[in-house]
Amino acid sequence: MNTEQHTSPSVNLPVDQYMSAVGQAARAAATSMAAASTAARNNALLALARQIRAHAGELKARNASDIAAAEANGLSTPMVDRLRLTDKVIATMAESCEQVAALPDPVGEMINLRRRPTGITVGQMRVPIGVFGMIYESRPNVTIEAASLAIKSGNACVLRGGSEAIHSNLALWKLVQAALTEVHLPMEAVQLVQTTDRAAVGQLITMPQYVDVIIPRGGKGLIERISAEAKVPVIKHLDGNCHTYVDSEVDLALAVNVTDNAKTQKYSPCNATESLLVHVNQAAAFLPIIGAVFAAKDVEMRCDDRAKAILADVPGAKVVDATEQDWFEEYLAPVIAVKVVDSLGDAIAHINHHGSHHTDAILTTNHPNAMRFIREVDSASVMINASTRFADGFEYGLGAEIGISTDKFHARGPVGLEGLTSLKYVVLGQGEVRS
Amino acid sequence: MNTEQHTSPSVNLPVDQYMSAVGQAARAAATSMAAASTAARNNALLALARQIRAHAGELKARNASDIAAAEANGLSTPMVDRLRLTDKVIATMAESCEQVAALPDPVGEMINLRRRPTGITVGQMRVPIGVFGMIYESRPNVTIEAASLAIKSGNACVLRGGSEAIHSNLALWKLVQAALTEVHLPMEAVQLVQTTDRAAVGQLITMPQYVDVIIPRGGKGLIERISAEAKVPVIKHLDGNCHTYVDSEVDLALAVNVTDNAKTQKYSPCNATESLLVHVNQAAAFLPIIGAVFAAKDVEMRCDDRAKAILADVPGAKVVDATEQDWFEEYLAPVIAVKVVDSLGDAIAHINHHGSHHTDAILTTNHPNAMRFIREVDSASVMINASTRFADGFEYGLGAEIGISTDKFHARGPVGLEGLTSLKYVVLGQGEVRS
Repeated sequence: MNTEQHTSPSVNLPVDQYMSAVGQAARAAATSMAAASTAARNNALLALARQIRAHAGELKARNASDIAAAEANGLSTPMVDRLRLTDKVIATMAESCEQVAALPDPVGEMINLRRRPTGITVGQMRVPIGVFGMIYESRPNVTIEAASLAIKSGNACVLRGGSEAIHSNLALWKLVQAALTEVHLPMEAVQLVQTTDRAAVGQLITMPQYVDVIIPRGGKGLIERISAEAKVPVIKHLDGNCHTYVDSEVDLALAVNVTDNAKTQKYSPCNATESLLVHVNQAAAFLPIIGAVFAAKDVEMRCDDRAKAILADVPGAKVVDATEQDWFEEYLAPVIAVKVVDSLGDAIAHINHHGSHHTDAILTTNHPNAMRFIREVDSASVMINASTRFADGFEYGLGAEIGISTDKFHARGPVGLEGLTSLKYVVLGQGEVRS
Repeated sequence: MNTEQHTSPSVNLPVDQYMSAVGQAARAAATSMAAASTAARNNALLALARQIRAHAGELKARNASDIAAAEANGLSTPMVDRLRLTDKVIATMAESCEQVAALPDPVGEMINLRRRPTGITVGQMRVPIGVFGMIYESRPNVTIEAASLAIKSGNACVLRGGSEAIHSNLALWKLVQAALTEVHLPMEAVQLVQTTDRAAVGQLITMPQYVDVIIPRGGKGLIERISAEAKVPVIKHLDGNCHTYVDSEVDLALAVNVTDNAKTQKYSPCNATESLLVHVNQAAAFLPIIGAVFAAKDVEMRCDDRAKAILADVPGAKVVDATEQDWFEEYLAPVIAVKVVDSLGDAIAHINHHGSHHTDAILTTNHPNAMRFIREVDSASVMINASTRFADGFEYGLGAEIGISTDKFHARGPVGLEGLTSLKYVVLGQGEVRS
């Protein structure tokens, strides 16, 4: 084996050469990772958990220099909090490695094996994608999350964390390398970009020869920019303008309970409902009740004329005229857009036009209406009589959530470990030839 | 319904405005196509078959003007032949529409429905992608093939055929529109680019708001250019440098029969074997026999030193020294690269480095070797004891083949109708909320 593979690329190189060397090292390690046994990959994760626990003190010391620099640079308190490696965060990182180790191996599964008339048996085998790149903000725990997903799925990865967390990330990366080495897997399988030079991101997303897919985490602006400039596929999550639609035939108590949960259980997640559509036949019955719930929780309602006419009479209701822009908005706040619609078809058309194709729900007792809604609403998750808040990899039973995709290609909706794999065809023969 | 939707975009507009109008019309029609019943889509295909048969004379007349222009412009005879709509080609087009109608509907399937601890049932539903663009050379029958795949899969499409076939394509498109109209589906679902302006292709591949995926057919150069410039995913098929590897433990008669078929059954397809690797333990036994077969069929062998030393003695063998470039080559001709390798690991490493990740086969009686080969060779199709020539959508039982993907994302290997669909999550509840 070429011993060059075992030297980390030098960060003193010009950034383009450095990133090429990082990519090349990841690509070379990907082959070994793909061939590694399930046991070796799981043992690496357990070793990583031990490393993290054994080096908690060192991690906190390295983290302290990031925190000091962040405070000196005037970072906001929430930003500094996200950066901080507390005992609790460190314990959670170690536990999550053990949890990922306990998940079923996504690699090697063979499906759809069928005998063909020619005698060959044709099916598909699930294999690692190769190398993924992850670009994320200054949460050092994401370094361990990404590394553990890569190890579990038999991939290599290149990690680019926020510059404010660089010392913490370097310390965590050292533990990942130690864990890989301990179980005789290539330590190059997890690469950390050691420079905070922004040009490194531009390189990372345009090296299809070394990186197969990019997973960005962060604000919509960052993700849009990466998607526009990337020369490889991006598993991207843009905004979540989720709708709850109350149909003409509905259990009112269920509708109030689910709508309340979808909007108010937590305001910040992307799967919280931002727009409420109500069939005209239910508006007079439903809106006053949900309006009172929202009034009690100080949720502002941005209404069309028909909704306003009903909600204006609810004591304490914060009712505002909706503008066209409100139908497109992801508030992530105690605000909801409310509209009365004349038909199921109008509701579907409104959602497909104004929504963000993330998650939309119908509340109804009418079976054909429910089925039409889930067929025709063009979103990653479509729901019947459930809170949009369920759109989540853990709630869906995926074990781990790599990200959420608002695309239609490869992975759509919450993405589990399978999103880091591809299916190749296998043909099992006994000497068959084509005639 | 907006009657504007029923006017074809005017080809007299500037090309960017024209293509936007084409894209917009396709996007609007995609919604109706996705909601159309299985019966309506199949009836459209049967109507199209009738239209083609009823208008055979008209098609031949329009085709004659393309043929006349092509001959006047000095197109080669094979190119003119591919352009020609003979009675046989017309009959085959009609029959293929009926065959596609008879395939199972890829749309609406619901899979993996499982109850979660919260009470919700989570699964996935297969739905159309939306709009695909197809770019192809001057084979007018591809217009009908693409239109029928779009109709069957509930998608809309934008077709850009070769300029030499423009009159034939316009005539065929008229029949597609008539068939859609006959069954009350939107005729805008199948758009044909009416201008031969090359700028139209540049537009088509950079309109993510209107077109979800591009399927190019043609030479490697065209596909590389489209992939590099596209702003939407491309289902792309680059070259096929397929390998057959003869392992250390093998049934010699089987190995000779399968290798012969993989190389010589037909030289032009992408799944023909271009490189032969032979384990050193079998080289002295296997190479003289296969060398005699190739000598009899005038297949040139480009050999490494060890293979040459054995093959040079075979009477009539065309033996040439291989260069490094030969290991990368897709000959599509009676030429094969031949190399002796020391181990299975060396064979796998050679294939992963020099191959094109298309189709590779191991011929062996050793089970662990067979399993290691299919796990570790990073190709769209991996085979045990079968001819690489089987890598084909029809041989794999996909019903229809949209294309072959040498990518790892979304679709890999032969792509059937499912490649034009995506899986969205469905959640079936009875009023569950998130706690």
